[in-house]
Amino acid sequence: MDVDESLLLVSEPATGVAMITLNRPESLNALTWPLIDELRRVLSEVHRQHDVRVVVLTGAGRAFCAGSDVGGARGRSDVDIPTRFEAQRRTSGLALAVRQLRQPVIAAINGPAVGAGLGLALATDVRIAGESGSFRDGAIRMGLSACEGGISWSLPRLVGTSNALELMLTNRLVSAGEAERRGIVSAVHPDDELLPAAIDMAAQIAGFSPFGLEATKEAFWANQNCGFGEAVDRENRTQILAVNTADSREAMSAFLEHRKPVFEGR
Amino acid sequence: MDVDESLLLVSEPATGVAMITLNRPESLNALTWPLIDELRRVLSEVHRQHDVRVVVLTGAGRAFCAGSDVGGARGRSDVDIPTRFEAQRRTSGLALAVRQLRQPVIAAINGPAVGAGLGLALATDVRIAGESGSFRDGAIRMGLSACEGGISWSLPRLVGTSNALELMLTNRLVSAGEAERRGIVSAVHPDDELLPAAIDMAAQIAGFSPFGLEATKEAFWANQNCGFGEAVDRENRTQILAVNTADSREAMSAFLEHRKPVFEGR
Amino acid sequence: MDVDESLLLVSEPATGVAMITLNRPESLNALTWPLIDELRRVLSEVHRQHDVRVVVLTGAGRAFCAGSDVGGARGRSDVDIPTRFEAQRRTSGLALAVRQLRQPVIAAINGPAVGAGLGLALATDVRIAGESGSFRDGAIRMGLSACEGGISWSLPRLVGTSNALELMLTNRLVSAGEAERRGIVSAVHPDDELLPAAIDMAAQIAGFSPFGLEATKEAFWANQNCGFGEAVDRENRTQILAVNTADSREAMSAFLEHRKPVFEGR
Repeated sequence: MDVDESLLLVSEPATGVAMITLNRPESLNALTWPLIDELRRVLSEVHRQHDVRVVVLTGAGRAFCAGSDVGGARGRSDVDIPTRFEAQRRTSGLALAVRQLRQPVIAAINGPAVGAGLGLALATDVRIAGESGSFRDGAIRMGLSACEGGISWSLPRLVGTSNALELMLTNRLVSAGEAERRGIVSAVHPDDELLPAAIDMAAQIAGFSPFGLEATKEAFWANQNCGFGEAVDRENRTQILAVNTADSREAMSAFLEHRKPVFEGR
Repeated sequence: MDVDESLLLVSEPATGVAMITLNRPESLNALTWPLIDELRRVLSEVHRQHDVRVVVLTGAGRAFCAGSDVGGARGRSDVDIPTRFEAQRRTSGLALAVRQLRQPVIAAINGPAVGAGLGLALATDVRIAGESGSFRDGAIRMGLSACEGGISWSLPRLVGTSNALELMLTNRLVSAGEAERRGIVSAVHPDDELLPAAIDMAAQIAGFSPFGLEATKEAFWANQNCGFGEAVDRENRTQILAVNTADSREAMSAFLEHRKPVFEGR
Repeated sequence: MDVDESLLLVSEPATGVAMITLNRPESLNALTWPLIDELRRVLSEVHRQHDVRVVVLTGAGRAFCAGSDVGGARGRSDVDIPTRFEAQRRTSGLALAVRQLRQPVIAAINGPAVGAGLGLALATDVRIAGESGSFRDGAIRMGLSACEGGISWSLPRLVGTSNALELMLTNRLVSAGEAERRGIVSAVHPDDELLPAAIDMAAQIAGFSPFGLEATKEAFWANQNCGFGEAVDRENRTQILAVNTADSREAMSAFLEHRKPVFEGR
């Protein structure tokens, strides 16, 4: 994949796994317009690559992503509303792009995830952290709403509403250990074992059928905003689609024949 | 109650408590069509029995329910879509039947709860586990979506979205201890104390008024998919119904007279 | 503020912080009609006071609030439905008033929070408890639905659905320690350090801009009942409102000049 490596690195650390690394370590991977646009472009390319089955998202250096660094337009009084609104949507659109990506995304949180960086981390499907991982909302300190980048939706669904509002209103920093205890991340690893652990998990997930993974991610998120009966309806219809793939028949045959399945993505 | 005991056992271990035991221990209580249909029939009969106030659901032998065993139709390419869809709804309909049952259901998880068995366990109202209890989604290994039997709705509402997707995408087995820590079950007991604990809890709950229990279960689940104001509205109307029962007046009198209430279910 | 001190105390323990203390310690601060009406009146007055930026809610003596004590009308068979319904809405309206208050509310749970007192505690934005804090639903023991005062909506969003229903159906008492572990409260303090801790947290939050706080609270709760995309939409629009306040420009300037911001609430 053709990538501007002053912004992002893209590698394939295991079969079917794309690792995307935010690569502005000197700025703690703060989001600039070029970085935002390049990340969206790469995500939309990954979306179409059917041999990529799982994505790992991480940051170069000692931060995951320290927020946005978009030229201080927010502090100026001469920017008109439509321009501000467009900028706001361009930044928060990253979280939507991660959520709508066909492939599951694992965030490997290798340091601070702050502001827009926290929103990005919480928009992924699974999060694991290194011991130096940390989490802070940040926006309220700038006189803004702490509801930013999807955090007001994502965070309470991880830690409950009381912990979520406490963190958002006080702007408190959450350590990796507390993040694991509260449910922000699924596991914490020593820093130098974080990427291997993320790649291991990704490789394991990448061993399942592409449509099974896509259908799991899509139906899961759709079912967070409906009643139980409607969720079961959506599950049922999705499952009939999955049952009718060649890959599900291959999985069944491989299971009965005690061998590894070979999936072809159809 | 007339029951096919090669499929299910039904007993009354305490006043007002019906215990339903999946009884195919040689197959780890995997769901077959006859078992699914018999369980639905028994549930609909229990629904009409007003002297049954709480249900305990468990499995005979060393498993709670190891999934479904419905003849391998999924692996065949010659089954048409309407037939598959009907089979899918027949299996997942169990979770809906448990949710719509008038009486609260306590699952006593005595071993593996896998696939459709996990969906069944998560559809109950309260779960406790024995130390040998364990939990796995399972479907993704068969090339299918892990969203099955209501799991995509139920699991994130127990453990948060990050843990839920991690478990569904990796197909990882969760032990009883982790299940308690994450919120899948409310308590873990030594295996030989599991049924006594479930029956104790059921008997305690069965001491409350039937309409109070039914109204609690029904309004609780209805209020998981609405805003706060609408939830309070539903609570208010439900409570006025409850206040106007003879049983609530009996509860109040018994409280003032320092005696046990005697409920008549009206 | 003019307050009936036989019902409530109102003080300003720190700049921008209003502390409201339920003051019927001899009755464990049980809610009477006069107390309910006085609390609603005080809340609506606080709502209009722009120099109040955070509210602390607590109870005098050894209880937070032991429930409602509204004359036993519920136990009488001669009260008509419209009258009961009005009484029901008047009590549960407290939870709605707390939720709709412009300012964030921190509950300092200094003893039992039971029934309507639990509903009130769960309607606040952040909860911390003293070691003697405790939590119980209570309604089901009176032959009623445990869904009361918003509990059926609030509690599962703090502790997950399994723990919530277990607590509601069994009427079990939850200690402060378990409440912290499950997510009902964000922290537990020794009893004599509870109010100082609540006031510290409130004072810290009160240092942020008024509109930032209001917009955080309002958008957060609105985003609990919608999909992710809709939540991001609401966040984006709210943030543009916040960006266009003089206070957010002041926050940015203060940040760049390494000084404390001075907010004017506009």
